[in-house]
Amino acid sequence: MKNVEIVTIGTEVIIGQTLDTNSAWIGEKLSMIGLNIQRKTCIIDDEKLIIETLQKAYKENDIIITTGGLGLTKDDITKKTIAKWLNKNLVYHEPSVQNIHAFYKKRNKEVNELVLSMALIVEGAEGLLNPIGAAPGMMIALPNQKYLFCLPGVPTEMKAIFENHIFDKLKNLSERYTEHYHLHLTGIAESEATKLLKNFENSLPDYISIAYLPSYKLLKMRLDLNIDKNDHKSKEVFQLKCEEMTKLLENYIISFEQESLEEVVLRLSKEKNQTISIAESCTGGNLAGSLVKLSGASKVLIGGVVAYSNQIKSEQLNVSREILEEFGAVSEPCALQMAKGVKKLMKTDIGIATTGIAGPDGGSPQKPVGTVCIALIANDLEFVKTYHLGDSSREIFIERVIAIAWENLRRYLLKIQL
Amino acid sequence: MKNVEIVTIGTEVIIGQTLDTNSAWIGEKLSMIGLNIQRKTCIIDDEKLIIETLQKAYKENDIIITTGGLGLTKDDITKKTIAKWLNKNLVYHEPSVQNIHAFYKKRNKEVNELVLSMALIVEGAEGLLNPIGAAPGMMIALPNQKYLFCLPGVPTEMKAIFENHIFDKLKNLSERYTEHYHLHLTGIAESEATKLLKNFENSLPDYISIAYLPSYKLLKMRLDLNIDKNDHKSKEVFQLKCEEMTKLLENYIISFEQESLEEVVLRLSKEKNQTISIAESCTGGNLAGSLVKLSGASKVLIGGVVAYSNQIKSEQLNVSREILEEFGAVSEPCALQMAKGVKKLMKTDIGIATTGIAGPDGGSPQKPVGTVCIALIANDLEFVKTYHLGDSSREIFIERVIAIAWENLRRYLLKIQL
Repeated sequence: MKNVEIVTIGTEVIIGQTLDTNSAWIGEKLSMIGLNIQRKTCIIDDEKLIIETLQKAYKENDIIITTGGLGLTKDDITKKTIAKWLNKNLVYHEPSVQNIHAFYKKRNKEVNELVLSMALIVEGAEGLLNPIGAAPGMMIALPNQKYLFCLPGVPTEMKAIFENHIFDKLKNLSERYTEHYHLHLTGIAESEATKLLKNFENSLPDYISIAYLPSYKLLKMRLDLNIDKNDHKSKEVFQLKCEEMTKLLENYIISFEQESLEEVVLRLSKEKNQTISIAESCTGGNLAGSLVKLSGASKVLIGGVVAYSNQIKSEQLNVSREILEEFGAVSEPCALQMAKGVKKLMKTDIGIATTGIAGPDGGSPQKPVGTVCIALIANDLEFVKTYHLGDSSREIFIERVIAIAWENLRRYLLKIQL
Repeated sequence: MKNVEIVTIGTEVIIGQTLDTNSAWIGEKLSMIGLNIQRKTCIIDDEKLIIETLQKAYKENDIIITTGGLGLTKDDITKKTIAKWLNKNLVYHEPSVQNIHAFYKKRNKEVNELVLSMALIVEGAEGLLNPIGAAPGMMIALPNQKYLFCLPGVPTEMKAIFENHIFDKLKNLSERYTEHYHLHLTGIAESEATKLLKNFENSLPDYISIAYLPSYKLLKMRLDLNIDKNDHKSKEVFQLKCEEMTKLLENYIISFEQESLEEVVLRLSKEKNQTISIAESCTGGNLAGSLVKLSGASKVLIGGVVAYSNQIKSEQLNVSREILEEFGAVSEPCALQMAKGVKKLMKTDIGIATTGIAGPDGGSPQKPVGTVCIALIANDLEFVKTYHLGDSSREIFIERVIAIAWENLRRYLLKIQL
């Protein structure tokens, strides 16, 4: 199995000014194609330290990937230092030179030597054109069939070069064949899923592994196949195991793609020609806002009312004074009236309402912080339920309410029991 | 100067399943107290690799901080491995044993041996009680006045132990005296601030440095003093430089604390007894939602209307058909009428409105993607302005609109020219 070391170069990462998301992203990509990583090293922009780290990484691994230090400020010494390490010169990468000229011409700006220095690469390296920036990446063949890849530190540029030029090269270098099966679940906690899949997990051969990736909104699961490139029989086993897992989790699957819950309800609402309006108390606009972050939301979401005060609940949404007095604003009758009110006001097919206690204040023994009533009104449905989400932060509370509201809508749209 | 190495232990970090936020957080803390970090290393849960990495870190540094591997699953081998490296036994840390018993008793659960194993520490180490979890941290004195600190991988537990037990110890170990002066700015870009501060920056002695930490919402700046513990004269220089910088940036400062823009407007609105309502088109609830994420928002925010469709703009907010037809929904007259409409509807002191083109579709040569009109209506003010925020992602567009809307409100509340 091929070993890889990731080397992150940059003082700003060491002192915590920038969070190193690059090495996590690369790490995931590599593990997905069966390349083995044992160590990631992060160092300051220091010539001696860079050379020493590369020397050790070369000795102990087959592939080295560096990020950072390819820009034009005086801190950016990665290329110079690698050239020194390999005893090579720096030369211009012509496609990148032209790239820079075209970019500056478009903006009516002058190209100077400093800017052009970003197009320099180590002599003998393969330059990897940067599709969205100036500095190219590099692929350098080292002795003993080892390889060094160099990438910029800006995450969007790093990812673009990795995906355009490096991913396939690494896949060829890997001696493993890998496949991945994705499931997005909702309505089931990680611990419940573990329990449900216990026998299934025990039945898995060692070349198939399962990964749980929980978040507040949904539970992502992945089944991974990792076999020798020539092993064809195991692929059939993997196929069967994917089917088995799908069957076991049937009731909780929201998608087989990398689709978010919001994307699922937006797609379904469009497919079924349903318009939506939303009345929000405790989520205060964040529920509507989570849909509006998606392109195309205007086809489905007509509007909403942020009814933070009781005055607005009664004046705008027609919640009766009696209900507010008898049951309070955080109650199922109030949530129902809010959803009905906004549906009528905005003339939509579906009305959704949230009212709850986000905390840290406002809780009582009967209605502790974390209590929320969520209603969904359609032409053929009146649904409301109280949930107890516990005493976490306001942000997490809001996130969870949003997830439940969309999950209820998803079930309604797919005619799954609510 | 003392050198520190941070060692992150955990396969889940290597393969990108978990993002390593711990080492960035620790890195920032250390740089703030004048401790020098040159390298961070991240490795899988492997005995040989852990020992080899610690050996190298010990040879080249004065202080080693590890995170991860202190839990109770079979992957968690950090303590066992360190004991092996130092040729010591594991012993129970009595305060942690009691801590675990108390925790389980409260929940009516049985304590078993596996759970208790979390209270084990390396013989001779100082156990650092975990205030919010079971596994204690450790401080181990190594030969040659070097130190090893071990922390759990769960970020909240890591931070709690670091702040309760480790920060002051490290401060004492550091030979440096440091001080930090924070400014939060708005209405000025990083490049403009750099220009404005050019002479100031050139005037700084080498023991005072300036840091720019830009985000979409605000520009954080920090002036750092880093001197020898016995150097008292330089503190006075730092004091003067802080005053000088404050003066230069006077017009853009929103706070000297770690207060966010939302926190500032919430505080000011409360102080000045102002109530707010919001009419949102392009931000779709996210503007109101950004305030609702803060505790105490209900004292200020009465409610809002998400007027995503033109129908809602005219029916709910009283935007006239003529204005929609003549100027369109993304226009200053429409934004003004929306803000007036919501203010009247919700009977508030202040009405705010947003209407714009978030993209990727819907742009035109006259009104390209990124165009937004933001209005603010108060009893003594009618303000509206068109902004061109460029063609970035919907999320960034929304973030920037929110920042501008709050910045306008902040200026109004402080009677600064809009």
